[in-house]
Amino acid sequence: MPEQYLSTISPKELRALIRSGAFASPTSGYCSGYAQTNLVVLPRKYAYDFLLFAQRNPAPIPLLEVTEEGGRAIRKIAPGADTATDYPKYCVFRGGVLTDELTDVSSIWREDFVSFHIGCSFSFESALLEAGVPVRNIEENKNVPMYNTNIPCDSAGIFSGNMVVSMRPVPYALIPRAVSVTAAMPRVHGAPVHIGDPSVIGVRDIYRPDYGEAVTINPGEQPVFWPCGVTPQAAVLNAKPDICITHAPGHMLVTDLLNAQLKI
Amino acid sequence: MPEQYLSTISPKELRALIRSGAFASPTSGYCSGYAQTNLVVLPRKYAYDFLLFAQRNPAPIPLLEVTEEGGRAIRKIAPGADTATDYPKYCVFRGGVLTDELTDVSSIWREDFVSFHIGCSFSFESALLEAGVPVRNIEENKNVPMYNTNIPCDSAGIFSGNMVVSMRPVPYALIPRAVSVTAAMPRVHGAPVHIGDPSVIGVRDIYRPDYGEAVTINPGEQPVFWPCGVTPQAAVLNAKPDICITHAPGHMLVTDLLNAQLKI
Repeated sequence: MPEQYLSTISPKELRALIRSGAFASPTSGYCSGYAQTNLVVLPRKYAYDFLLFAQRNPAPIPLLEVTEEGGRAIRKIAPGADTATDYPKYCVFRGGVLTDELTDVSSIWREDFVSFHIGCSFSFESALLEAGVPVRNIEENKNVPMYNTNIPCDSAGIFSGNMVVSMRPVPYALIPRAVSVTAAMPRVHGAPVHIGDPSVIGVRDIYRPDYGEAVTINPGEQPVFWPCGVTPQAAVLNAKPDICITHAPGHMLVTDLLNAQLKI
Repeated sequence: MPEQYLSTISPKELRALIRSGAFASPTSGYCSGYAQTNLVVLPRKYAYDFLLFAQRNPAPIPLLEVTEEGGRAIRKIAPGADTATDYPKYCVFRGGVLTDELTDVSSIWREDFVSFHIGCSFSFESALLEAGVPVRNIEENKNVPMYNTNIPCDSAGIFSGNMVVSMRPVPYALIPRAVSVTAAMPRVHGAPVHIGDPSVIGVRDIYRPDYGEAVTINPGEQPVFWPCGVTPQAAVLNAKPDICITHAPGHMLVTDLLNAQLKI
């Protein structure tokens, strides 16, 4: 399938390719302008605690859609989509341990599964670029650097842990704009949680991220930290549920929601 | 207790008066600048459905805090507050029917109760006034007019129903400001859901509200409709849970949250 064609197809068309098995790659850069989501699937017995964990920590866990128990259908953010087939790749964790990577989880789907589709920073990165704020990880073609912090999440039932943050270096003069642009998008992580000295939030070495890759910080720039969607995954794995399915890193659902629709 | 003294006491002091039984009146106008909340208390067996109903309908049901099962303590929005004593008056519904009005629900508290404290339009009304947008129900010293609509909520488990809206008439020239001010407060209902012709959303007679009192609409003004916190109460009563406790109309919890903290 030629790259050029893929860059112009609709989310619905891309999901159909993914469902057919013809596309199983990271989704970054595809279907420009459309929001992508992270995935957490849990058995119903854990779903109340997780829903409450998200309610208490909406910045790192902005829920865009929660499906019916046992249902694979995504109704609002991507009508016609199937939770079990339309993410390009899935990670399956049993007791907190990664046991499988699959491109289709139909065969292990259970009637007690509840799916949480979670807003992702791709949406606000495109808004930052449109506002003239550089996004270093895109410039350097890297996965965004992410860090464990000392910022506690508000726990709920079996779920607890500290917030994970993503970092983008921003020139001093553009920091206010970076804040205002992302603050207007609370459904995809919202405003930064910290600006400046990384040690204040427990980050010891900015060039050694806990997830993703380090990016260049130039003179005249400050590190700006946003709540990150790895937070719920880390909390879920800590809780060691008997089974949990997530998207594989970078392999997101491409929704029919325009990023612009996620602005207040 | 002299009015003048009451108008300057802190939320914590007012809650102490309420807890002692010395204050059991509507809270409108007290502790200026601080957010007040609506209340829905349900047994745990209904709590997942209600939490999901709120996740799916955040505009009419903006949850500010959900307490632990059986716990009466409010931890974040009003540290030290007690759910069972610190609202001035409660309504108790059994099977969807109002059976009691109480100023303290300690005696009927159950270990399986979960409390939902919900953001309220008082917060955005004060922001509208600060922005120079008139609030007719305050000018006329009336309860805001509220209407049943034909706008369906996204249902969840046993909870479903149409959205209830509140209406404030706004001069044409101020409508954009009214939208932008309230859009920036998504945790207290956010932007209007409809502006203009009431019949479009199923409101037949604007001068006969389903709840509250009619207010004057002057020439040169449009009716502007916001999602309303009566929505969850109506949905809960339709579902006829064996027991449900709400605040009595107008008898809210005064929190320690500043309205300004609810802006994005």
